[in-house]
Amino acid sequence: MERRFRLVLSCPDRVGIVAMVSNFISSHGGSIKDANQHSDPTTGWFFMRVEIGAASLPFDIDALREAFDPIAQSFNMDWHISDSAQPRRVVLMASKESHCLADLLHRYHDKELDCEIVCVISNHDDLRKMVEWHDIPYHHVPVDKENKQPHFDKVSELIENYQADVIVLARYMQILPADVCETYARRVINIHHSFLPSFAGAKPYHQAHERGVKLIGATCHYVTEDLDAGPIIDQDVIRISHRDLPEEMVRLGRDVEKNVLSRGLRWHLEDRILVHGNKTVVFN
Amino acid sequence: MERRFRLVLSCPDRVGIVAMVSNFISSHGGSIKDANQHSDPTTGWFFMRVEIGAASLPFDIDALREAFDPIAQSFNMDWHISDSAQPRRVVLMASKESHCLADLLHRYHDKELDCEIVCVISNHDDLRKMVEWHDIPYHHVPVDKENKQPHFDKVSELIENYQADVIVLARYMQILPADVCETYARRVINIHHSFLPSFAGAKPYHQAHERGVKLIGATCHYVTEDLDAGPIIDQDVIRISHRDLPEEMVRLGRDVEKNVLSRGLRWHLEDRILVHGNKTVVFN
Amino acid sequence: MERRFRLVLSCPDRVGIVAMVSNFISSHGGSIKDANQHSDPTTGWFFMRVEIGAASLPFDIDALREAFDPIAQSFNMDWHISDSAQPRRVVLMASKESHCLADLLHRYHDKELDCEIVCVISNHDDLRKMVEWHDIPYHHVPVDKENKQPHFDKVSELIENYQADVIVLARYMQILPADVCETYARRVINIHHSFLPSFAGAKPYHQAHERGVKLIGATCHYVTEDLDAGPIIDQDVIRISHRDLPEEMVRLGRDVEKNVLSRGLRWHLEDRILVHGNKTVVFN
Amino acid sequence: MERRFRLVLSCPDRVGIVAMVSNFISSHGGSIKDANQHSDPTTGWFFMRVEIGAASLPFDIDALREAFDPIAQSFNMDWHISDSAQPRRVVLMASKESHCLADLLHRYHDKELDCEIVCVISNHDDLRKMVEWHDIPYHHVPVDKENKQPHFDKVSELIENYQADVIVLARYMQILPADVCETYARRVINIHHSFLPSFAGAKPYHQAHERGVKLIGATCHYVTEDLDAGPIIDQDVIRISHRDLPEEMVRLGRDVEKNVLSRGLRWHLEDRILVHGNKTVVFN
Repeated sequence: MERRFRLVLSCPDRVGIVAMVSNFISSHGGSIKDANQHSDPTTGWFFMRVEIGAASLPFDIDALREAFDPIAQSFNMDWHISDSAQPRRVVLMASKESHCLADLLHRYHDKELDCEIVCVISNHDDLRKMVEWHDIPYHHVPVDKENKQPHFDKVSELIENYQADVIVLARYMQILPADVCETYARRVINIHHSFLPSFAGAKPYHQAHERGVKLIGATCHYVTEDLDAGPIIDQDVIRISHRDLPEEMVRLGRDVEKNVLSRGLRWHLEDRILVHGNKTVVFN
Repeated sequence: MERRFRLVLSCPDRVGIVAMVSNFISSHGGSIKDANQHSDPTTGWFFMRVEIGAASLPFDIDALREAFDPIAQSFNMDWHISDSAQPRRVVLMASKESHCLADLLHRYHDKELDCEIVCVISNHDDLRKMVEWHDIPYHHVPVDKENKQPHFDKVSELIENYQADVIVLARYMQILPADVCETYARRVINIHHSFLPSFAGAKPYHQAHERGVKLIGATCHYVTEDLDAGPIIDQDVIRISHRDLPEEMVRLGRDVEKNVLSRGLRWHLEDRILVHGNKTVVFN
Repeated sequence: MERRFRLVLSCPDRVGIVAMVSNFISSHGGSIKDANQHSDPTTGWFFMRVEIGAASLPFDIDALREAFDPIAQSFNMDWHISDSAQPRRVVLMASKESHCLADLLHRYHDKELDCEIVCVISNHDDLRKMVEWHDIPYHHVPVDKENKQPHFDKVSELIENYQADVIVLARYMQILPADVCETYARRVINIHHSFLPSFAGAKPYHQAHERGVKLIGATCHYVTEDLDAGPIIDQDVIRISHRDLPEEMVRLGRDVEKNVLSRGLRWHLEDRILVHGNKTVVFN
Repeated sequence: MERRFRLVLSCPDRVGIVAMVSNFISSHGGSIKDANQHSDPTTGWFFMRVEIGAASLPFDIDALREAFDPIAQSFNMDWHISDSAQPRRVVLMASKESHCLADLLHRYHDKELDCEIVCVISNHDDLRKMVEWHDIPYHHVPVDKENKQPHFDKVSELIENYQADVIVLARYMQILPADVCETYARRVINIHHSFLPSFAGAKPYHQAHERGVKLIGATCHYVTEDLDAGPIIDQDVIRISHRDLPEEMVRLGRDVEKNVLSRGLRWHLEDRILVHGNKTVVFN
């Protein structure tokens, strides 16, 4: 696909934002490829995302940012511009279960995900062979249950050294420390294997079996300090029946987890997700 | 459809139950029209439902019950036989919102529900005209918030006088007293407007909006003493987006509520739901 | 909801359309409540829909149209502006089956549909009582199979006299003559009881049973001269199994038909559907 | 899971089949783990599937077949018994596209599929590395467009040499010759990337885009001589919008294809699919 700049912004709602932004673009000859707006009457907040053909503008991305800055300031915007030619650097974290990791790696291999997967970090060595087949570095960082800090120190160091833009917890199964959550706020994506807020925490499929629900689900969300309580990006469900024991739920749920996580990551990479408070606006 | 007897049973699992039951039926020339079994390894319990062409058996329903009783006793079965020619007597309870009630009434009018709706009870008078158009008695039993007992006394009296087999809470919005729940255990069907166990209690769509979920749902369940915690019969969901305020969720959710409640009631009327502990087996 | 003007347009794509439109609105102090754009690379066509708070503009609708006209002309727009305070006049057409009609009438009664249902026309008298309960005129216009023209003449006369804006074929089961399709192009909405293009024509559920499909569906579309071949507005499906005979498919399919038709009508009434060639853009 | 025998049968319906079969099982002390019956009033045909704990029977599989044979003969049954301890031998066929193949291989690697994948055959060499990573033989058998017979001769030879029980066309993109379809009738599973019978043949996503449908789908079916017309095993769909070009449909459709094909294969491997005429009964 041709190169695009993606302008994403949110600010207090008022008359004239769309006109100001679209004028700015068209006055420089910019060709709008896709645009979405949303105005939330509950919070009085305005959200916008515009894709502009990069070749139609007389700017590189830095000059574009500089040119747009006065408008952003005048509307008190929370904003950023990204360049489709600069793919984000993604760190995947996993544990022993391979389905989410294998799914993301295969989509990456099939060019479905517009990013660079820079490494995989796991507290187990099980998935090394699968990852290395894709020529991606694999870091085994064991966890000592009695003292997890060394693990997280090493993880933080790796994330920093790899200059990660995004961290994906592909069934990582460890709870990230609060400082990592804060440093990488809105950039750590987790998949939880339940339809949140139901069945947060451990063994959600067993909880679901216990309660006798008729659908099970998965939830992709940004990680915050509060376990399984961050802004929800996407969710989906699958029908089960009285015949399905927790083992079958685990199997059926895997497909939901894979789909929901890969969708969430794609939307993040395409700058389609705007966070406000503990909720997301997803322009998809 | 031709007349059928429906034999529904559950008991501790052991070798030979299906053989014993099917022998019993075939030895009397009975023609099996539909049959389901389920054996739950978690609880060691066995569940079975058989539909038999009534004309193929040399029994009326009482003689059939008598003939089957020794088998039931020898396996310690929890069982019953129903006759499709004896439709169940259903009491609908509602409040002010009409969508579930109108949906059930129209399905009844269209012969989709194999029952007799004997009356509608409501704590408001709003829906009288709609109900009486269907030539169904409408009882307005107001609730005094300070003293709800007279309301429930009157409701219980009506249910008893109408000899109700099933009570459907079609957005009734009142919490039934424990003694009614007990007397009519496994015969009171409620629709809750959330995907339980998420958002039990009041204003679930507002809770869902607050949390920022991406799907909303509805749950049909048998009523027990514990609010929104009884055995789940069916659930379904619908996708929403950041654009949907609670009002739109209410509108979108109505269609889910209607479908889930009417499915649950149909399955109950067709003896497809077996309850064990706080969970259901649904042979559909 | 507060009064809104809805501006809907399509035109050949080029730089500056959004800027021109949003400038026009903001220069008059107009408050944009919702906006969508789509640019189709296949056809080179641009589509836009904007909702503006009516109170924020110094125009009545005619003055607004006049003020916008020069912009529309300069971009060769196919456009219209509607006023949420002027609900559209809807004629419903039915035959003997009541489910779609009853569903639309109940949604109308519940204020879900922002329109005025001015009459129901049917080739049978069966649904009169249901319609008249809603205080809506019912016209029974019988069809002579040997000579259908008198029926269609009378139908056309009624539609004209009622000054209908929209005609909904709620399981009308007759094929409208080409001249009616043309006169009311993009304003006649039909529900077909299959997932088109599969099973066009008669008895789609029987065709589906014959083929052994595992999902059945319904399609809402604008009517054109070619049977079941007009622009598709919405579709949905429901899972079936080998146990479902055509009769059960008919029952299960009804719920899909109702949901798909009512969604399609709502989107039409809210000016969310733009037709280009034989396809629709739906801003929902 | 413990070892099981699976008895699958179909025959003209009459009184006493279930009794005869379940008596046979219980008289030998057999423990029924799962059982399904279906009686089709349209064709007068009866279908049954029983899973029996192998350890509960005093037979090996050959003795079991011999013991059951008289019953099968007396009811004119089309029947077979399989042994969960003898996994089926599966040949996968592919072309260049990797998503279905990678998905099946990963599920196999994760022990989701109870079979032995004995080889992969492809008319291209592209996927060799992926397959060989799983230690599965890869056979590149090129196709000469002018003369395809040598390709099919080689393919037939490989299938025969590997003693394949099942052949899965995982986006193989070639039309199997009639004689192969016949030899392996009901054992060749294909995935077609449309919701059949819509868009049979080539480039279904482009056909779907052309028609403007709002859902796209995939169909898993047994291959017969007639292209895309064999008995349907499973189907599913995904919602699309006016924004989705054929390329996006291809991407979105992949997930549906993978899920539908893997479900179909699992059901086949578990003897859950019974074919009668051109339709399937699926006991799932």
